[in-house]
Amino acid sequence: MSSNQLDKKTQAWSALFSEPMSELVQRYTASVFFDKRLAAADIEGSLAHAEMLAAQGIISGDDYAAIQRGMSAISAEIESGAFEWKLALEDVHLNIEARLTQLVGDAGKRLHTGRSRNDQVATDIRLWLRSEIDLITGLLRELQGALVDVAEKNVDVILPGFTHLQVAQPVSFAHHLLAYVEMFARDEQRMGDVRRRVNQLPLGSAALAGTTYPLDRERVAKTLGMEGVCQNSLDAVSDRDFAIEFAAAASLVMVHISRLSEELILWMSQNFGFIRIADRFTTGSSIMPQKKNPDVPELARGKTGRVVGHLMGLITLMKGQPLAYNKDNQEDKEPLFDTVDTLRDTLRIFVEMIGGQINPATGAKEGGITVNAPAMEAAAQKGYATATDLADYLVKKGLPFRDAHETVAHAVKAAQSHHCDLSELPLRVLQEFHPAIEKDVFEPLSLRGSLNARSTLGGTAPAQVQAQIARHRARLAA
Amino acid sequence: MSSNQLDKKTQAWSALFSEPMSELVQRYTASVFFDKRLAAADIEGSLAHAEMLAAQGIISGDDYAAIQRGMSAISAEIESGAFEWKLALEDVHLNIEARLTQLVGDAGKRLHTGRSRNDQVATDIRLWLRSEIDLITGLLRELQGALVDVAEKNVDVILPGFTHLQVAQPVSFAHHLLAYVEMFARDEQRMGDVRRRVNQLPLGSAALAGTTYPLDRERVAKTLGMEGVCQNSLDAVSDRDFAIEFAAAASLVMVHISRLSEELILWMSQNFGFIRIADRFTTGSSIMPQKKNPDVPELARGKTGRVVGHLMGLITLMKGQPLAYNKDNQEDKEPLFDTVDTLRDTLRIFVEMIGGQINPATGAKEGGITVNAPAMEAAAQKGYATATDLADYLVKKGLPFRDAHETVAHAVKAAQSHHCDLSELPLRVLQEFHPAIEKDVFEPLSLRGSLNARSTLGGTAPAQVQAQIARHRARLAA
Amino acid sequence: MSSNQLDKKTQAWSALFSEPMSELVQRYTASVFFDKRLAAADIEGSLAHAEMLAAQGIISGDDYAAIQRGMSAISAEIESGAFEWKLALEDVHLNIEARLTQLVGDAGKRLHTGRSRNDQVATDIRLWLRSEIDLITGLLRELQGALVDVAEKNVDVILPGFTHLQVAQPVSFAHHLLAYVEMFARDEQRMGDVRRRVNQLPLGSAALAGTTYPLDRERVAKTLGMEGVCQNSLDAVSDRDFAIEFAAAASLVMVHISRLSEELILWMSQNFGFIRIADRFTTGSSIMPQKKNPDVPELARGKTGRVVGHLMGLITLMKGQPLAYNKDNQEDKEPLFDTVDTLRDTLRIFVEMIGGQINPATGAKEGGITVNAPAMEAAAQKGYATATDLADYLVKKGLPFRDAHETVAHAVKAAQSHHCDLSELPLRVLQEFHPAIEKDVFEPLSLRGSLNARSTLGGTAPAQVQAQIARHRARLAA
Amino acid sequence: MSSNQLDKKTQAWSALFSEPMSELVQRYTASVFFDKRLAAADIEGSLAHAEMLAAQGIISGDDYAAIQRGMSAISAEIESGAFEWKLALEDVHLNIEARLTQLVGDAGKRLHTGRSRNDQVATDIRLWLRSEIDLITGLLRELQGALVDVAEKNVDVILPGFTHLQVAQPVSFAHHLLAYVEMFARDEQRMGDVRRRVNQLPLGSAALAGTTYPLDRERVAKTLGMEGVCQNSLDAVSDRDFAIEFAAAASLVMVHISRLSEELILWMSQNFGFIRIADRFTTGSSIMPQKKNPDVPELARGKTGRVVGHLMGLITLMKGQPLAYNKDNQEDKEPLFDTVDTLRDTLRIFVEMIGGQINPATGAKEGGITVNAPAMEAAAQKGYATATDLADYLVKKGLPFRDAHETVAHAVKAAQSHHCDLSELPLRVLQEFHPAIEKDVFEPLSLRGSLNARSTLGGTAPAQVQAQIARHRARLAA
Repeated sequence: MSSNQLDKKTQAWSALFSEPMSELVQRYTASVFFDKRLAAADIEGSLAHAEMLAAQGIISGDDYAAIQRGMSAISAEIESGAFEWKLALEDVHLNIEARLTQLVGDAGKRLHTGRSRNDQVATDIRLWLRSEIDLITGLLRELQGALVDVAEKNVDVILPGFTHLQVAQPVSFAHHLLAYVEMFARDEQRMGDVRRRVNQLPLGSAALAGTTYPLDRERVAKTLGMEGVCQNSLDAVSDRDFAIEFAAAASLVMVHISRLSEELILWMSQNFGFIRIADRFTTGSSIMPQKKNPDVPELARGKTGRVVGHLMGLITLMKGQPLAYNKDNQEDKEPLFDTVDTLRDTLRIFVEMIGGQINPATGAKEGGITVNAPAMEAAAQKGYATATDLADYLVKKGLPFRDAHETVAHAVKAAQSHHCDLSELPLRVLQEFHPAIEKDVFEPLSLRGSLNARSTLGGTAPAQVQAQIARHRARLAA
Repeated sequence: MSSNQLDKKTQAWSALFSEPMSELVQRYTASVFFDKRLAAADIEGSLAHAEMLAAQGIISGDDYAAIQRGMSAISAEIESGAFEWKLALEDVHLNIEARLTQLVGDAGKRLHTGRSRNDQVATDIRLWLRSEIDLITGLLRELQGALVDVAEKNVDVILPGFTHLQVAQPVSFAHHLLAYVEMFARDEQRMGDVRRRVNQLPLGSAALAGTTYPLDRERVAKTLGMEGVCQNSLDAVSDRDFAIEFAAAASLVMVHISRLSEELILWMSQNFGFIRIADRFTTGSSIMPQKKNPDVPELARGKTGRVVGHLMGLITLMKGQPLAYNKDNQEDKEPLFDTVDTLRDTLRIFVEMIGGQINPATGAKEGGITVNAPAMEAAAQKGYATATDLADYLVKKGLPFRDAHETVAHAVKAAQSHHCDLSELPLRVLQEFHPAIEKDVFEPLSLRGSLNARSTLGGTAPAQVQAQIARHRARLAA
Repeated sequence: MSSNQLDKKTQAWSALFSEPMSELVQRYTASVFFDKRLAAADIEGSLAHAEMLAAQGIISGDDYAAIQRGMSAISAEIESGAFEWKLALEDVHLNIEARLTQLVGDAGKRLHTGRSRNDQVATDIRLWLRSEIDLITGLLRELQGALVDVAEKNVDVILPGFTHLQVAQPVSFAHHLLAYVEMFARDEQRMGDVRRRVNQLPLGSAALAGTTYPLDRERVAKTLGMEGVCQNSLDAVSDRDFAIEFAAAASLVMVHISRLSEELILWMSQNFGFIRIADRFTTGSSIMPQKKNPDVPELARGKTGRVVGHLMGLITLMKGQPLAYNKDNQEDKEPLFDTVDTLRDTLRIFVEMIGGQINPATGAKEGGITVNAPAMEAAAQKGYATATDLADYLVKKGLPFRDAHETVAHAVKAAQSHHCDLSELPLRVLQEFHPAIEKDVFEPLSLRGSLNARSTLGGTAPAQVQAQIARHRARLAA
Repeated sequence: MSSNQLDKKTQAWSALFSEPMSELVQRYTASVFFDKRLAAADIEGSLAHAEMLAAQGIISGDDYAAIQRGMSAISAEIESGAFEWKLALEDVHLNIEARLTQLVGDAGKRLHTGRSRNDQVATDIRLWLRSEIDLITGLLRELQGALVDVAEKNVDVILPGFTHLQVAQPVSFAHHLLAYVEMFARDEQRMGDVRRRVNQLPLGSAALAGTTYPLDRERVAKTLGMEGVCQNSLDAVSDRDFAIEFAAAASLVMVHISRLSEELILWMSQNFGFIRIADRFTTGSSIMPQKKNPDVPELARGKTGRVVGHLMGLITLMKGQPLAYNKDNQEDKEPLFDTVDTLRDTLRIFVEMIGGQINPATGAKEGGITVNAPAMEAAAQKGYATATDLADYLVKKGLPFRDAHETVAHAVKAAQSHHCDLSELPLRVLQEFHPAIEKDVFEPLSLRGSLNARSTLGGTAPAQVQAQIARHRARLAA
C-alpha cells in the first residue's frame, strides 16, 4: 500500500503547493467543525457510490467489501466519539476518506474515483436535508393536531374577532385556532414541494463536467431513494436553489409562529387575560417577584428574525456567482443547519405548549394552554361586535347594503353616547333608526346569534367549525 | 333611489366619524393610485359574486343585470381613460362601487352584500397574480427555448469550465448554457407550485368571520376558475403567504439572472472576449468615445437587489401580525407589482438578448449573442484543464485515484516550470512521473479528447449534450 | 454651431453603434422617468462646474454666461411643466444637456468638459440627499417636540409599565413617551453622521480616473457647500456607501415608528382603551358599521418592511461589484427615493397625529392623542406592579435582595389566591411573610408611592421626568 | 447565611411557579452557552456597580470587599476552565451571581440591589461590543496600512481601469488599491460613530422604571469609561439600536471586502493573470490535480451574506416590539457575536493576504500579493483606453467636447476595422478625422501619457497618487 496523501495535507495541499496553510487560514476555510454533522449522509452516499463502482466493474468486489468494512468502523467511531476530526483535513469528506484509507488502504483511495467533493457535498446536504424535511413535516402535522385538539374543546367559546386589533365580530375560539391550522397545513404542503426538488442526485457530476468513468447514476439515485438525477453537471455542483427554497419555506413557518406568538403574548397580558400557558414555558424576573413571563412565545417570535436572516444571507451568497462551484458555497451550511435546528426546536416546543404532553399515569394530555372563556366573552361584548348583524338584518328587510351600513353607523353613535351596547338599546330607540326593526332584532344582536348566523363554508358558526375539525382530523389521520 | 353614501366619504367615513381625513392622511392611507391596476380583476370578481348572489336569490335578476350593465360601462370608461379615480374613495374597490351606484342606483349598493373589502382585495390580488404567473411562466419557457437554440449551435464549441473562476476542465459551451435551462426549468416548476396556492378563493369570508347570507362560495370559485375555496375565513382575509412565496420564487429567478448576467459581463470583457451581445442592448459613455457597455445584464444583475428587497419587505410586513386583517397588509401591493414588472421586463429582454428576434423579412431569428469560439478554446488551453484526465488515465492503468492525483500534481508543476501545457510535454518527460504512461496519453490530454470522454448522464460530452437538448425540446414543446 | 450629437441618440449612441436601442431596451435601461427628480441638483451641480471651468480658463466667460442663461430657461421650463423629457436621452443629465445645447449651442457642448455622467450623477444624488436629510432631521425634531408636548401634560398619569407585555411596574406616561424621544434623538444624531459622509464632492473624478483638465475641485465643493472632496476618483464614481448608510439609518427610524405604532394600536384596542387618536387618522370598514380603525399607525408599521426591503436591496446591489462604476448602480435611485418619501410622509403624519395641529383661530394645538388616564391607572392596578417595591422595602430593613425577592414571591402567591392586590392584604397577613413589615409598607405598595420612589437619573419619578423634559426642551430649542 | 435561592431554580423559578422548566424548554430559553462570552464584561460591570453601592452606603464596605474577592475567584475559575456553567441558571448573569453567593454568602445576594438583568445585560453587551469595536478599528487601520504598502510599490504599474468591466482608461494599480483604502477609512469612521452610541451606560435603569435606591449612575459610567448615561430607563433596557447600527456598519465592511474579493478572484483567473496570492491562502481540488483556488477571497465574499443576514435578522427582531424589555431581545446576541467573529477573522486574514507577514529573520514583510505588471499593462492596451485622451486633445484644439467625442467614435471605429489601437493609426489617418490632429497626439494616446495627464486632485497621475499615499501614511500614523 502506498502512502496516504491526505495525511500530508498538513504540509501542503499537494506537490503543487509551496507552503501549508497557516492555522488562521485553516480555521477560516475549514468546515469540518460544522459539516461533521453530515457524516452519516456522507457515508451513506459513499457506500451507494462504491456499490455502483463495483457493479460497473470500476473497482473490485474486494475493494467494495473493504470500503463497507471501513465505513462501518468509522460510523462506530463517530458514534462513540472516538473519531478524531482534524482541522487540517478541512471537511467531513476528507476526514472520512483519510480515515478510510488508514483503515483499508488502497481501496479507500479508490473510493473517490469518478467523483469530486463538489458533487459529494451537494449529495450529502440533499440527503441530510431530505430527512430533516421529513422530521419537520412530522412536527408540522403534530402541531396541527395539537391545535385541532384545543379547538375541539373550544368550539362554543366566543372570542372577540379583531381586525386592526379593534373588536370586529364575535368568532369561535376554535375557528381562530383553525386559522393557524390552515397556515401550518400550507407549510406542510410547501415542505413537500421543496422536498421533491431536494431529492435529486448530483453525484456523478464530478468536479463540474461529468466524469470519464462509466458511472450508473440512476442506480445510485435508486439506492439512495432519490426521485431523479440532476441532468446537468455544471448546475448539479453549483445549484443551491434548494437551500434558499427551504429557507424561504422555513421563514414562512416562522412568520406563522411569530403571529401565533404575538397573539399568545397578547392573550396572556393582564389586559386580556384570555389564556394561560403552563409554568414550565415561562420564567420569572431577577428583580420583580410577581413576574411570570411568556418567554417561549417571545423567543419564538424573536427567532423569526434569525431564520429570515439566514434566508437573506443565502440569497446574498448566491447572487452574481458565475458557474460552476465557488468556495462561497461552503457558507450555505451554517445558516441551513441553524434554520433546521430553530425550526425543529420551535415546533416541538409549540406542540407541547399548545397541546400539552401525555401524562404517563393517565394517558391523557395535560399542560396545554388554559382557556379563560368568560374573559374572552366579556371582551367580545365591547366594541359593538354585532353591528354588521344589524346591517345584515336591515338588508334582509329590503335595504340596500350601503344604506343599511350607514343606518347602523347612526345607531352605534347613539349607543356610544349612552355607553351601552346595541343590544341594550330599547327596541323603540332602535326603531328610530329604521322602522323595519322589530323584536326579532335581538337575536342577531346577541353574540351567539351572530356567531351561529355565519354558517357559510369557512365561516365561524359552530356547525361549520365542527365540519372543519372533522376535515382536518381525516387529513391528519391519513 | 337613496343617496350614495360613498360620495359623502369626502366629508367623513360614516356617521360615526367627526371629521374627514386631511389630504396628507388620505394620500398616506389611500391605495387607489397603485391598486387601480387590479380593476379588471376587481370587476371580474364582483361579477362572479353578483352572479352567485342572484343564483342564490340574495339579489334579484334585475339587480344582477344592472350590475352587469354598470360594470360593462365602467370597464369601457377605464379602458378609454375616462374613468375618474378619486383619492377620497381610497381604493380601487370603493371607486368602482361608487361609480357603479352612480350608474345603476340601488343595485350597486347591493353588490357588497355578504362581502367585505378584506376578502374582496384578497380575491383581486389572487386573480391578478394568477394571470401574471401564467405570463411569467410563458416567458421562462421562452427563455429556456432561446438558450436551447443557442446551445444547439454550440455543442462542439469548447469553453474553459471554471470552478473558483480558475480553469478546471473543458466544457461544451452548449452544456454551460443548458445549466441555465435547468435553473429556469426549476423556476417554472416553482411558479407552478405557487400558482396552486394562489388559485384559492377567499371571497365569502367577508370581514373576518364569514357572512350571514347563504352564499355559494364553490360556485364563485368555479366561475373564476379557482381550484379551491379558502376554508377558514380568518385565515382567508389575513393570509399573504402567497405573496411572500411568489416573491421568494421571483428572487430565485433573479438570482439565476444575476449569475447569467455576471457571466455575460465577464465574457464580454476584453480579457475574455468570448461573446458579443447586439448593440441595442448596450450603451455608450458620455465621456469615453470607445465604450460599448453591457448595460442590460448589469442592470438585470442590479435588479436582483430590488426583488430580494421586496421579499424581505414582505416578510417584515407580516412578521408578528395578529389576526385577522390589519391595514399593514395594504403594503403588500407595491412590492408585488414591482416584482412582477421587474420579472416580466427582465425575462422578455433576456429572451431577445440571448436568442435574438425574428427578422420579418427572412423569418429567421437574428441578433442574439455572437459566440467567439476561437477565443473560448484558446482560453481553455490555459490552466491545465486536462490534468484530471491524466489522473483518470493513470487510474485506468491501475493506480488508486489518490495516488494518481498526487502524481499529476508533480507533472503539472513540471509543466508550469517549462511554461507549457501537459500535452506539450514530451512523452518521455511524462513517463518520468509514471512509467505506465504511454503514447495514447495525448488523446485524453487534448481538450476535445477530454470533452468527449465525459459522457455519463449529465456530463459535457457532445453526445450527452445533444441528448439533453432533445429532452428539453420535447419538454418545451409539450 | 455644429449639429447636436445627443439628438441623434434615437438613431444610435454614437458612430460606434450599428443600431439604436429597441423601445423595450430603452425603457429597461433609461432612468429619466424617475431621476428627473434630481433636475434641480443636476443644474446646481452643472452651474458650479461651469463657474469653475470659466474661472480656470477652460471655457470662456461668454460660454459660462450662455450656460447660466440656458440653465435658467431650463429651470423655468421644468417648473412650468413645459420641459419635454425624452426617453431616448436616457436620464436627467443627457436630457438637460441636450436641451441646453439646443438653447445655447456650442457653449452647451462645452459643459461636459472634464466630467462624466459617473461623477455627475454621484454629485447629484449627494446634493439631493443632503437636502432631504435636512428635511428629515427637521421632522425628527418636530416629532420629538410633539412627544415632549404630550409628555409634559401627562407627567403624573400612571401607565402600567410592561416587560414581556406583563405588568411590571407603574411608570409615568410621560416617561414612556420620552423613551421614544430618546430613540428619535439618536436617529437625529445618526442622520447627522450620515450627512457628513454624504456631503463630499465626487465631481472632477470624471469617468473613473480623473481628468486631463486643470479643474479646481475644491472651488466647486465650496460653491456647493460641501465639506470635502472625494480623494480617489475610482472610489468617487462607484461608492454608494452613503445610500446604504442612509437606508440603514432610515430603517432604524422606521423600527422606532413600528414600535410606537404597535403601542398606539394596542392602546387603542378595546381591551386597553388607553388613548384615542383623532378621527382623521382612522378609517371605517366597508362592512362593519361600528369600526374606527387606526389605519395610520398600522400602515406606518407596515411601511417598516418597505424601508428595510430597500436597505436589503441596496446591499444586495453593491455586493461583489468590481470597480469602478457599473450600470447596476443605477438601481440605487428608486429605493433611495422611496425611502425618503416614506420617511418624510410618515414623520410628518406622526408629528400631527401625536401632537395635533395649530388651530389658526386660537393659536393652540389641537387634535393630538387623547389620553384616558383612569383606564391606564386601572390597568396598572392589575398584576402586582409594586411587588418589587415590597422587596426593596425588605432590603432596606436588612434582608439581602435575593431573600427579599423570594419572600415577596410567597406574598404574591397568597394575594393571588385571595384575588386581591398586595396593598389590599391586611398588615398582619403581610407580616406573616416577614416580621419586619410595618404600617409604612402601604406607601411603597401604592402606585404613586412606587412611582415617586424611582427618582434616580433616568427613572420614572415625576421629578426626574420633569428634569428630562426640561433637558429636551433646551436641546430642541438649540 | 440564608439559603441560595438561585440554587433552587432547578425546581422552579420562585415560589410563584408550580413546576420547573422541562429540559427542552430550558435549552430553548437559556442563553448561557453563548452568552458566557460576556463573563468578563459581566464581572467588570458588577464590580463597578458594587463599588458604587458601597460608596453610596447601600451595601457595606465589607460586602464590597467580599464581592471583589468572590469575583476575583470566579474570574480565575473561568479562565482555568474550572467554572461550572449550569443550564438551569439560564444565563451568564445568574451563573455568576449564584456562584458568588456560594463563595461569599449574603454579600453575593446584595449585589443585585438596584439592578435587574435587563439593565445588566444591556451594560454587558455594550462593554463587550466597545472593546470589539476597538479591535476591529485597529484591524481596519492595519488593512489600510497593508493596502498603502502594496500601493507604494505599484504607483507606476498600469492597470486597465474598468467601468462596466469594459476597458475604460489606464489607471495606476496603486490608485486602484487606494480606492479600497478610502472605503476602509470610511468604515473606520463609521465604527467610531457607532462606538459613541454604544458607550453609554444603561445600568441603574433596573427592570424598566429605575430604582428606589440612591444610585450614582454617573460614578458607574466613569468607572467603566463610558461617555454618558442612558437618560430614560424604559429606553435603556429595550434599546438595541446599537446592535443594528453595528451590524449595518459591519455589513458595509463586508460589502467592501466582497468587492475587493471579486477583483482578487478576477485578477487571479487565468484570463487576467494580474496577481497571485500566497499558496497558504489557497487550496487544491480533491479531483483536479492542477487546481490552486483562491478560497480565502471566495469565502470572504460568501461571508458577506452571513453578516447581511444578521443585520436583517436583528431588524426583524426589533420590528414592532412594544416597550420595554421583551425576551425576543435575547436573540440579539448570537448574530452580534458571529458578526464580530466574522469581521475579525476576515480582516485579520486580509491584512496578511494583501500585505504579507513579517519574516522574523529579516524583519521584512513577505508573502503579500504578487503583482504581474506586464500582464496588467498588456491588458490595458486592449479596448482603446486612451480614446478619451484624444477627445480631450481635440477640445484643447478648440472643439466643443460633444463634437470631439463624436469625432473620436469615428476614429475608434476605423481602428477597430484595422484591428489596431488608436496609437497605431498613422498620423495621416488620424488627421482624416480632424485636421487639428498633429504629431503631438501620440503622447496623450500612450498609456503613460494618459496616466500622467490625470493629475487633478483625486486623479490617477502618479504624482497625485504619491500625494495620496503620503496623506494616508500621515493619517494612519496618527
